[in-house]
Amino acid sequence: MRQEDPVATSAETHAMRRAVALSARALGATAPNPVVGCVILDAAGQVAGEGWHQRAGGPHAEVHALLAAGERARGGTALVTLEPCNHTGRTGPCAKALIEAGVARVVFAVADPSPTASGGAQTLRAAGIDVSEGLLAEEAETVNAAWLTSVRKSRPFVRWKYAATLDGRIAAADGTSRWITSPEARADVHRLRAEADAVVVGSGTLTADNPHLAVRGIDGATQPLRVVVDTRARTTAGARVLDDAAPTLIAVGKDADTSHLRGVDVVRLPYAPEGRGVDVRALLAELLARGVRAVLLEGGPTLAGAFVAAGSVDIVTAYLAPTLLGAGPAVLEGAGITTLTQALRLDVTAVDRIGPDLRVSAVPAAATAVPSTSQES
Amino acid sequence: MRQEDPVATSAETHAMRRAVALSARALGATAPNPVVGCVILDAAGQVAGEGWHQRAGGPHAEVHALLAAGERARGGTALVTLEPCNHTGRTGPCAKALIEAGVARVVFAVADPSPTASGGAQTLRAAGIDVSEGLLAEEAETVNAAWLTSVRKSRPFVRWKYAATLDGRIAAADGTSRWITSPEARADVHRLRAEADAVVVGSGTLTADNPHLAVRGIDGATQPLRVVVDTRARTTAGARVLDDAAPTLIAVGKDADTSHLRGVDVVRLPYAPEGRGVDVRALLAELLARGVRAVLLEGGPTLAGAFVAAGSVDIVTAYLAPTLLGAGPAVLEGAGITTLTQALRLDVTAVDRIGPDLRVSAVPAAATAVPSTSQES
Ligand SMILES: NC(=O)c1ccc[n+]([C@@H]2O[C@H](COP(=O)([O-])OP(=O)(O)OC[C@H]3O[C@@H](n4cnc5c(N)ncnc54)[C@H](OP(=O)(O)O)[C@@H]3O)[C@@H](O)[C@H]2O)c1
Ligand SMILES: NC(=O)c1ccc[n+]([C@@H]2O[C@H](COP(=O)([O-])OP(=O)(O)OC[C@H]3O[C@@H](n4cnc5c(N)ncnc54)[C@H](OP(=O)(O)O)[C@@H]3O)[C@@H](O)[C@H]2O)c1
Repeated sequence: MRQEDPVATSAETHAMRRAVALSARALGATAPNPVVGCVILDAAGQVAGEGWHQRAGGPHAEVHALLAAGERARGGTALVTLEPCNHTGRTGPCAKALIEAGVARVVFAVADPSPTASGGAQTLRAAGIDVSEGLLAEEAETVNAAWLTSVRKSRPFVRWKYAATLDGRIAAADGTSRWITSPEARADVHRLRAEADAVVVGSGTLTADNPHLAVRGIDGATQPLRVVVDTRARTTAGARVLDDAAPTLIAVGKDADTSHLRGVDVVRLPYAPEGRGVDVRALLAELLARGVRAVLLEGGPTLAGAFVAAGSVDIVTAYLAPTLLGAGPAVLEGAGITTLTQALRLDVTAVDRIGPDLRVSAVPAAATAVPSTSQES
Repeated sequence: MRQEDPVATSAETHAMRRAVALSARALGATAPNPVVGCVILDAAGQVAGEGWHQRAGGPHAEVHALLAAGERARGGTALVTLEPCNHTGRTGPCAKALIEAGVARVVFAVADPSPTASGGAQTLRAAGIDVSEGLLAEEAETVNAAWLTSVRKSRPFVRWKYAATLDGRIAAADGTSRWITSPEARADVHRLRAEADAVVVGSGTLTADNPHLAVRGIDGATQPLRVVVDTRARTTAGARVLDDAAPTLIAVGKDADTSHLRGVDVVRLPYAPEGRGVDVRALLAELLARGVRAVLLEGGPTLAGAFVAAGSVDIVTAYLAPTLLGAGPAVLEGAGITTLTQALRLDVTAVDRIGPDLRVSAVPAAATAVPSTSQES
């Protein structure tokens, strides 16, 4: 059970805020693991060490922080954004490490919903450690939304991003679409790519734009997996996504002819049960199996329609340029909605000005960006 | 010449702010006149009287304020949002009234750009009064944007309002459109109607929605002129806009058969030089001639396209509901823009949350909502 009002000192709250900020540094770099931050306070309440999980296979946040704190951890408090793990994965269980370091108290923000890793709190309590849960849970959940959603829904978290005019066009009548939004908005998209584990587009976008889809302009960014959903394997060997700037996966229909894509990572998927193309749920399952937790869906409108129809969009990030076209393709097509009462309702979670443009963030209503376990679907 | 840094005491600035607020009370009620507010400070700098122009044919703001101030105006200062008029219209010239009341100083925010009324400042100065211009000019211009634009452009100011989903749809695939936006957003539209002198829709909207277009829910609101742009006079005698809640004008093509509209106010207009329907500029000229200064264009997308193509939109007020449809008519059609470089660029002037919806306000770029006289087109 999540405690809504955990008892925490202000030093603890401050340290947890820092731990959340530290965790966010590794967004996009830890899949299939969560992002986690940890701050150790010594017995006097002074910061003794901090750390964050930096990449899958690397030490967990607690291990980094305990190492930095050394002997000062004894009798101190560990603030961790996620319940310390209990299982021996590629690194030893963190609960054990905390016990061995002699910390007196552990405060974590969010319980671990994964069946293999959870139980850390219990192990800590059994060892006589004072354990408290829920401090800054909302902030920690927001930063870890992708990973938490992927565990709870057993599919990757999907952020659908689009860039449109104020009148909802993603290209002009003649197909020109570079650039609808400002350099500032495009730079922001590169940040979203860096925070994602996979960037997904449909074959229509590949054919129309020959996009590159790698992260540019962000030092030290982990490149996401570039994914083209391309039922009939229309991707040509010369496509820009097939360069070596980042890994690439071409998702094709189960009997597509892929003889021209020798040496390319291709996955064969079943066809959509209704409608066109490959099955979106099968695609997401394949990505999950490959360790992808956070998907950035970059369109186009047809593939986005399929994701919306499948209930597989967790957050919408709309970049709206203050321009009008009055013609050209629309933002979203073929979501299977025919009448107003069926419209997909969202809640706006943020509106920001990005250069001259607006960035509107919205999540499906009656769920939240970070559904609590009781709302699991 | 507008003074950018008028020398004003803080009492004067405070009084001008009040005058601007007073002027805004009469938005939608003064056409063909501007909205004007006035505050009189006595010789000691205390508020002695205030007033605002409440309706065309009624006393001007200065007259109201002088009446309230009485003898305390002598040796005092008048703060007026617009240059006092110099001509004898339905009421006497305000410059003369201020001189006769013995005020020592007049501070006005915005110069009067109309050839018939301007010259008030000169008259006041010639009478030995200390005259200062430009105090809170921006605030005053914003409130008076419709009237100032109508004088400078010799056509009514046009606000294009629309209500759309986040993906830019104004109705669902089956035509259902009630209601895309929230009750709060719809109430806000009634405020816009109340502040306008005319509400304009195309025959497509009339046929699809049979809208009423009068102001509801705002005490003491002046009803706008309801205008249907209906080339072929498809409006039937039973249309809701033809009730007596507000005046109504049906704008038809010059040789339309209007025999079924006996007793209805009909105006015959030339056809658009290119494209469909009646000439938008002729329509606006007709409305100006009828005293309309502020038009609220309520759509639909086709008529809005004609206004955009004619360069006749001064501000866009977009109500965006956080919903997705993926099908249905778009916000804007047929604006004559075929490629991205021709897109109509806007500057976002405000983004507000209205209930669950967003209201985005934007004005054509490289102009402003309130073009200064030097940018006159
Ligand atoms: N402004 C933006 O944010 C943005 C972003 C992206 C694209 N765009 C624009 O969007 C346009 C392309 O849009 P689009 O709609 O044609 O392309 P798209 O959505 O990228 O691709 C659609 C294609 O994906 C394939 N597909 C595979 N599985 C699918 C499934 N389950 N459901 C639906 N489609 C599936 C289908 O072709 P096959 O079955 O043949 O593979 C389908 O035709 C271009 O003009 C591009 O510039 C704009
Ligand atoms: N959500 C919103 O904000 C909103 C607002 C309004 C309407 N709507 C929706 O919009 C849809 C109707 O849209 P619409 O585009 O068909 O209707 P519209 O824009 O209201 O009317 C278009 C018609 O106006 C006439 N017209 C006259 N002069 C014109 C000119 N110079 N240029 C263009 N048209 C001129 C034309 O018909 P004639 O020449 O035959 O007269 C034209 O077909 C409905 O579904 C309605 O619900 C939504």
